[in-house]
Amino acid sequence: MFTVAKPMSARRRGFAHERDLARKLWAKGFAVMRAPASGSKAKRLRYPDLVAIRNRVVFAFEIKTTSNASRDIYIEKEQIEKLIEFSKRAGGEAFIAVKVVGEGEWYFIPVSELVVTPGGNYKITLREESRSRFLRIDNLVSLALGVKTLREFLEK
Amino acid sequence: MFTVAKPMSARRRGFAHERDLARKLWAKGFAVMRAPASGSKAKRLRYPDLVAIRNRVVFAFEIKTTSNASRDIYIEKEQIEKLIEFSKRAGGEAFIAVKVVGEGEWYFIPVSELVVTPGGNYKITLREESRSRFLRIDNLVSLALGVKTLREFLEK
Repeated sequence: MFTVAKPMSARRRGFAHERDLARKLWAKGFAVMRAPASGSKAKRLRYPDLVAIRNRVVFAFEIKTTSNASRDIYIEKEQIEKLIEFSKRAGGEAFIAVKVVGEGEWYFIPVSELVVTPGGNYKITLREESRSRFLRIDNLVSLALGVKTLREFLEK
Repeated sequence: MFTVAKPMSARRRGFAHERDLARKLWAKGFAVMRAPASGSKAKRLRYPDLVAIRNRVVFAFEIKTTSNASRDIYIEKEQIEKLIEFSKRAGGEAFIAVKVVGEGEWYFIPVSELVVTPGGNYKITLREESRSRFLRIDNLVSLALGVKTLREFLEK
């Protein structure tokens, strides 16, 4: 007897990556909440993909994954507006969380650092020299603990 | 041609009440996030039913509905522990949000105000004299804006 492994749908793979990030942030001491599944009526309320809070410091994330780090990542204007509205209300910071799938690493890009495209959408470039300006998971811990400010990270 | 309206399942009714509370808190200026559907793997991470944040003030809610206000509401120990763990990490306040369905009203009970049962679980009594100690949605706004503290509400 044997069973054939079903290929995982893009949607289910997306959830698996979200869970991976949620687990990692929880392990670092954050209270973490993932959004209800996309497409539910709840989405009308403009949820980010994930919210992490530690000691009243709130981070809201839109999650993107890529298996090709040489390609830019594009994000729609509406997604960024939704993320900014949420974090403005919460008094928090908004990030795009990017996982480079082959590498298994997460990078966090503050929305203020995104490049605007001529069409009004947003873009992230993953080449090495850009990544030096991205935050890593331990940097989020430093921000939440007040060890370092976001400005200090971006000025490095 | 006609169709017979399907009775709404308890599960779907539960979601409808969650959405009702989410919408009301959003309308009051909170950033709001509902948990993924119960039973998903995500639940292992100990999510509250709903989180509302305004200006770095974090409220975590477990949601209960009842159509019979003369009956006490019981909540399992594990649910309360989950809620307390989340709000401790977040630096926020934990509440049970109760909707009395016929009345359509929401009441918010701080976990510190719950009555412990002999079996180690928790209980809420909805009779009128108890309700005077419950918070209403506008009280949550006052808390978030720092107009009044939780202690001031509970000493009234």
